[in-house]
This record gives sequence, structure tokens and C-alpha cells, in this order.
Amino acid sequence: MPDASRLVETLEAIVGPGFCLSSPEHLLAYECDGLTLHRGSPSAVVLPADKTEVVRVVRACRAAGVPFVPRGAGTGLSGGSLAECGAVVIECSRLNRVLEVDPEDRVAVVQPGVVNADLSKAAAPFGLLFAPDPSSQQACTVGGNIAENSGGPHTLKYGTTTNHVLALEVVLPSGELLRIGSRTGWDFGYDLVGAVVGSEGTLCVVTEATVRLTPLPEAVETLLAVFPDIVSACRAVGDVIRSGLVPAALEIVDRRTIEAIEASVYAAGLPADAGAVLLVELDGAVAVLAPQMERVRALVAGQGATRVEVARDAAERQRLWRARKGAFGALGRLAPDLYVHDAVVPRPRLPEVIDQILAIGEKHGVRLSNVFHAGDGNLHPNISFDRRDPDELARVLAAGDEILRACVAVGGVISGEHGIGTEKRDFMRLVFGEDDLAAMQRLRDAFDPDHVCNPGKIFPTTRFCVESNPKARGYDRVSFDS
Amino acid sequence: MPDASRLVETLEAIVGPGFCLSSPEHLLAYECDGLTLHRGSPSAVVLPADKTEVVRVVRACRAAGVPFVPRGAGTGLSGGSLAECGAVVIECSRLNRVLEVDPEDRVAVVQPGVVNADLSKAAAPFGLLFAPDPSSQQACTVGGNIAENSGGPHTLKYGTTTNHVLALEVVLPSGELLRIGSRTGWDFGYDLVGAVVGSEGTLCVVTEATVRLTPLPEAVETLLAVFPDIVSACRAVGDVIRSGLVPAALEIVDRRTIEAIEASVYAAGLPADAGAVLLVELDGAVAVLAPQMERVRALVAGQGATRVEVARDAAERQRLWRARKGAFGALGRLAPDLYVHDAVVPRPRLPEVIDQILAIGEKHGVRLSNVFHAGDGNLHPNISFDRRDPDELARVLAAGDEILRACVAVGGVISGEHGIGTEKRDFMRLVFGEDDLAAMQRLRDAFDPDHVCNPGKIFPTTRFCVESNPKARGYDRVSFDS
Repeated sequence: MPDASRLVETLEAIVGPGFCLSSPEHLLAYECDGLTLHRGSPSAVVLPADKTEVVRVVRACRAAGVPFVPRGAGTGLSGGSLAECGAVVIECSRLNRVLEVDPEDRVAVVQPGVVNADLSKAAAPFGLLFAPDPSSQQACTVGGNIAENSGGPHTLKYGTTTNHVLALEVVLPSGELLRIGSRTGWDFGYDLVGAVVGSEGTLCVVTEATVRLTPLPEAVETLLAVFPDIVSACRAVGDVIRSGLVPAALEIVDRRTIEAIEASVYAAGLPADAGAVLLVELDGAVAVLAPQMERVRALVAGQGATRVEVARDAAERQRLWRARKGAFGALGRLAPDLYVHDAVVPRPRLPEVIDQILAIGEKHGVRLSNVFHAGDGNLHPNISFDRRDPDELARVLAAGDEILRACVAVGGVISGEHGIGTEKRDFMRLVFGEDDLAAMQRLRDAFDPDHVCNPGKIFPTTRFCVESNPKARGYDRVSFDS
Repeated sequence: MPDASRLVETLEAIVGPGFCLSSPEHLLAYECDGLTLHRGSPSAVVLPADKTEVVRVVRACRAAGVPFVPRGAGTGLSGGSLAECGAVVIECSRLNRVLEVDPEDRVAVVQPGVVNADLSKAAAPFGLLFAPDPSSQQACTVGGNIAENSGGPHTLKYGTTTNHVLALEVVLPSGELLRIGSRTGWDFGYDLVGAVVGSEGTLCVVTEATVRLTPLPEAVETLLAVFPDIVSACRAVGDVIRSGLVPAALEIVDRRTIEAIEASVYAAGLPADAGAVLLVELDGAVAVLAPQMERVRALVAGQGATRVEVARDAAERQRLWRARKGAFGALGRLAPDLYVHDAVVPRPRLPEVIDQILAIGEKHGVRLSNVFHAGDGNLHPNISFDRRDPDELARVLAAGDEILRACVAVGGVISGEHGIGTEKRDFMRLVFGEDDLAAMQRLRDAFDPDHVCNPGKIFPTTRFCVESNPKARGYDRVSFDS
């Protein structure tokens, strides 16, 4: 057993007093991330000031035989930044500088702790933005976006984080500092940047990122179509996609989510009578948006939209997006816990899968709501619950299990933009065989042969120390032994 | 030493008579690819009919201790499909079926031997296309595009092959068949598809690919701006990019290339008086193209364009593209050999780097021409020569060496869309240290621990059997010992 107190001393010597947290009351804040269901206590939390300190922290952890976990803002929804196996959390909030914005080359160089929305703010004076915009963008960091390959409502047109990361500086678990990728966006040899983006912090610690910036669109139009029910809204999404239009976003919000939003600080006057609303955003040149909006109006009407509201100005548009992006926060007020699910199905299967999900929710008697990136087929069935009620918890987990299986059955995947983390590691076998897992494990070993970088994530639990997360074990039992 | 004749018998039993080539006259055709400077003779060439045969071929090679090389159409320009170390070539031309085109989900499922242009032809009736369009698209295959992460003129707006591959079925060097990625485009766990795309056939053999299809643009406009010199054309490219426009393509063709094209079957009436032409393609909605074209006209005029020609219809547009894409073929007529270089520099550095490249060509007295994807900063300085003239060859190699160093010096990379292959393996140390190479080697080992899959590519020559490619050794000497 490593001597934790001596490691804490060493870490404090590296990062300076006040930047190595180890008292129980300090560590409590790092017990979980946005997935409140899973918990794990770190040995310590360090806040390095620069990459040199990150290198020294990693080396100190290695010397002490203690694993480590990079962490951004802790807004992740799959337990990806949870400290398992007594890991040390490397908290990146002091690495928060935008080092460069280059409008000619359309790139920015940032430290990992830069808040997503702040990067777009820094790019705005040059007519540019950082396209990935997860709903948590006011808090989440670029480093976390890279770890989870974050998406957001505008993924439909602009892709996920991996499409916007050009080069990285990383600290390998061996303590080496490595620069991978190229500012030009052209990589050669192997795509190491691609391997790191979305690896959920299990391969290395990112200390600097060179990212692509995107020109701000000339104009934006946002339209809200009101539907009597969610399945019609899904059908309208199919029609829009088939029409050849490529909207910037196609989002569905169901009645229960609307009620939660309207009862919260995010209230935006969403229609109380709607079964669901479809938020359509088009961007591009002024001249094309009007005819495209007309086509969208016709298409949604064809699927039974009872009316359409168009945001009249930037303020109205912003209010709609604030409501959409605040949905998870609003739902959080309904019950002590919120399980934000995340799965993707082929778009043409959306209507039938949504039907099935509603039936599963009813069957298990759980408080299910749906707010999701419909244009991507990226579902977020959310369940409000109280984890102190064991019966409710069991039903929540059983419903989640069935939902994932329904998505996989139509050719979908068990995670879109939230990652596997601890949340879905035991669902990996739903889609992957031993050969697939072995191939992934070999890729991991190429970076982290000793499994000291964010241990316990992605891979099914048999592969790592199980003692640190009793709730994960309970989850395992519920989902596989029942 | 493995018994080659017994392996040939085994392979023939797998693929059937006529589909395993082993006579010297048959093997001659596989001695090189588009990089005529490097040569290597395979032990045999097999043409499997399906994935089961690919699995059996790989297993037979492993049992015999012989390496293997997947090969598409052999149009690659970096020696990527060269058989080194007596490898068996797995030729994919019989795996040439488009298995599915799904317009609702905008995906196609294809075998690796499908010709790039044929895939877009198959998608066209649904209003879709496969966006990557390398100049060799009439011959090159999707499997080869995946191996090299091919680009093309439209990369500027649509990205390279890696942005269009959703899922793959691959045969690992162990002989296992593995499916990676997801048809939905959402991957989780590690991005194995991203690792395979661009790996130059060194990780596995692709037997099936699920790719993204892109809606055909509503309208296309193509404009040819005539410049007195190439540096002004480069400056105009910078102005277009800075203006916020995202053209579908921004291509520069210099005077020497124009002369070669006009003397060939690709003649398109390109202006004989131009120092260089800039080909600008805009696509999108009809309503926006006219004002965008006006902006481009003003921008190119501002950098000294003497006149502008606009393609009046699809036939004229096609003729221009046929000329542009036929440039390499046309240049091939000027001398027995053509060295097509490939490097990328940050776009704002284009004018100065082009100036340097011209000076390098003059200094070494080589026949240099430039035709390139200027919008991406992706240069193709091409050198026409006769490899039977040792003095000329030495000058060609010395000039190439200096050109690459000039690109790296401004923050560029040594390969854009053509790969490293055998061509640039000894330049890898120009940009990568031992730590970087070791990280890449570990990634390779995750797939191919025994280095039997396309050996001798990407990594510097000290790492593999050197006996098989005397010309590569000469190259090495010229570039590093002189």
C-alpha cells in the first residue's frame, strides 16, 4: 500500500501550499461528477499551475504507485472524472489561459482548463467561434470536451470535438511530455490526436490544445415547431434530413422537459400545450435562410405541427437556447437525482425507438423525460429519481438497461457525447465482444501499459480494482443479474 | 527463410487458380506504385474474392512467416503499397461491390476495391456524393483512400477521408475479423476507426467500409483567376480565407503545369499567358453564389489578377476539373519520372514558402512545377526528371530535401494527403523525436505487434529489413549524409 501522506507532501511541494487538497471536506466536492449515482474518493486533488507541474505530479504519482485522473469542470455525465482506486485528481482549472487566437489560420491555442464558452468569447472579435457547444458550455472545459469528444446541439452541422482538435501537448503516464498532431490540421504517421480525443482521460493528461476556429455564420434563424406528440416531431426530423437540408441544429424537447424548464430560471415561454417542440436552427448566408425556413415550415406542417414560432432577434434566439441548454439543470430540480442517458440510433429509427422508450418508462413507473439532439439520432432519455429509495433506484436502472438494449437492437450505440466512464462500462459487452475489447485494451496499453491513467473507466469492471466503487457494483448486479 | 513456393500453393488453393500471381512478368506490374522512384518485388500477389479469403490469406502468410501488404489501385504517391521484405500483396480489386446506399441515413457500405468515382456515381441518383475526391479518383479505390487518408481539391470545405468513414470491418494481422466504429457515426471507447484511417495499411486489412455520403450542392460556380505570377495567386488565397468565405476548392496551377496540361489530352484552353491560375469553386444555394462570386472577383483583382473566367455550364466546369486533375498525368509526359511532392504549410506562410521553393528549384537546376490545394496550404511541388541520370537524380533528391525542410521551418508538416510510405520515412525525424516515434510504434504494436502488416512504411529505415529497397537506401544517403 503506498504511503498517501508522503505523496501528499510531495505533491504539495510541487504545486505549492493551498493547491493540493487532501482533507475530507475538500475531497467531498470531488466525490462525483455530473453522474451523481457513482462515487469515489480521491487520495488528493492537485491544481497544477503549468505543464511542468503536471509532468512532476504524474511522475510523483508513478513513483508512489498511485493512479491519477485528469479532471476539468466535473460536468461530465458518465463518471469519467471519478477517482477510482484511490487515484489523485489532477484538476486543470488553473490551466485556464487562451494562449493564442490566430484569425488568419483560424486556430486557437488553449490550456485545457479554458471554459468552452470563454474560448468562443475570445474568438468572437475575429468573427470566429469554437463550434462544439455542449449544453454545459458555460462551465465545462476544453480539456473535458477533448476527453469526452463532446458534442452539443450544433454537432449535426459542425461535428463533435474531434473534428475541431488539430494538435495536442500531452503528458504520458510515463511522465514524458509529447506534442502530437499539427496546427495545419494535417497529420501523418498515425492519428494520435484522434486516439486521444474521446479516450476519456485514460491515455494521458492534455496540457495544451490547438483547436480549429469556425467563421461565425452570416445569419442565423431559429424556429420552434409545436407538435401534439413526440413521435410526430421525430418524423418531421426525418423529413428535414431527407429533404437535403443541413440545419445547424435539430432538437426535440418533450412536454415534461418543457414543464421543468418553464418552472425554472430558464423559463422561455415554451408552449404549455405542446406534446413536444422541435427547435430548428438554420445558419448561413442571409439570402438562403428565408427559402430554407419556408421548406422547414412546410415539412413540419406535413407531420402535424400545430404552429411555428420564429425567433425575431438574437435575444429571442438566445432565450430559446438558454432554455434548451438549461433543460438538464431544470430537470435537476424535479428530484434529488437525475440520470441523463445518452445513446444514438440511426435517424430513420427515431420514431419507433422513442415509442419504445416511452413504453419502457411507463412499464417501470419511472419519471422519464426526453430532450435530445434529434438530427443526430442522439437521444437523452432522462430519469428523475431519488437514489435513497432502493426500489425506485432498481426501477431506474432496469429502465435504463432496457432503453440501451432497445437502441442497440436497431443498430444504435450505447453512448453519444457523454462517454462510457464508469456509467456504461458494464454495458460495453452489449455491443463489443472479447476481441473488440482486447483491441481497445491494446490501444490503451500503447499509451498507458500500467493502467494508472484514469483507471476503471470504459472497460468492464472485471478488468480493474473493484473495491473502490460499491455503487458501480450494485449497478452491475441490477443490470446483469436481474 | 520461408518456403515461398509452398506458400504460393497454399494461397492459390485459397483464392483459386488465376488469382494468385507469382511469375516474374506478373509481379513486374506490382514493383512500384505512383512513386516510381522506389521499387520492391512481392513474393506473390493474391486477389481474394471476399473477406473470408482475406482472413485465410492473412493466416496463411502468418503461418509461413511472410509479411503482407494490402493494395488498392496502386495510385499512391509515397510507395505505401510497395512490397518490402518479400511481402505478399493482397490486391483488393475483386472486392469491388457497393453493398448498400442508404439515402435516409446518408451512408454507403462498400468493399475496399470500389473505385472512388464509382461510389459517387452510385450515390448520385439519391442526390448524394462521396466527398473525398483525389485527383486519381477515376482509378483509386476507397480502400486506398482509407489507407492514406486521401484528400483532394474539395478537402478545404469537406475534409479528408477520415471525416467520411463511419465504420470498418478489418482483418487484423492475427487473422481475426473485427468490426470497429458505428454506422451512426458515433463511436465510443477508443476511436479505432480514426487510428486505422491514414495508417497506410500498416495496422490491418480493410474488408468493408461504411462511409458518410454528402448531399450534392444545390449549385456550383467555378471561376478561374489569371495571375501574372504564383506568389500573387497565393496572396489572393490568403485574402479569400480571411474574408470568411469557405470555398469548396481553392487550387493553384502554375505556368509550367498549364503548359504540360495544354500539350496533353487534358487540354482545357487554360491561358498560355498566365504566370499562374487560381481555380475557385463555390458551392451551395443558388441565391448566395452570385454575391460570393462578386466578392471573390474583387479579392483576386485586389491581388493583381489580370482577368477572371467563369465556367458557363457543367461541361465547362468539368473540363476545368479534368485539366486540374489530369495535371499529374500531363506532367508525366515531360520526362520519364515525376516526383510528386506533398507538404503542408500554415496558409498565411504560403507566399513566402512558394518563393523559397522556386529558389530551391532554380538553385538545383531541376524542372519544378507547382499545382496544389492552396486553400489547405497543401503544396505539391513536382519535379520532372530521369532517374537513369544519377546526377539529375541527386539534384532532385537534394531539392526535395530542402523543400521539406523549408516547409517544416515555418511550422508545416512533411505530408498532406499522400502519406509517408517509403518515400518520407527517413524524413520523419525532421519533425518527430524518438519519443514521438516510440509512441507511434506502440500504437502500431497494438494492432500489429510482429510488424508483418505492410512492413517498412512510415518509420525510419533503421527499424526494418533494409535489404529489399536499394533505392530507398540511396535516397537516405542523399538526403542525410550529404
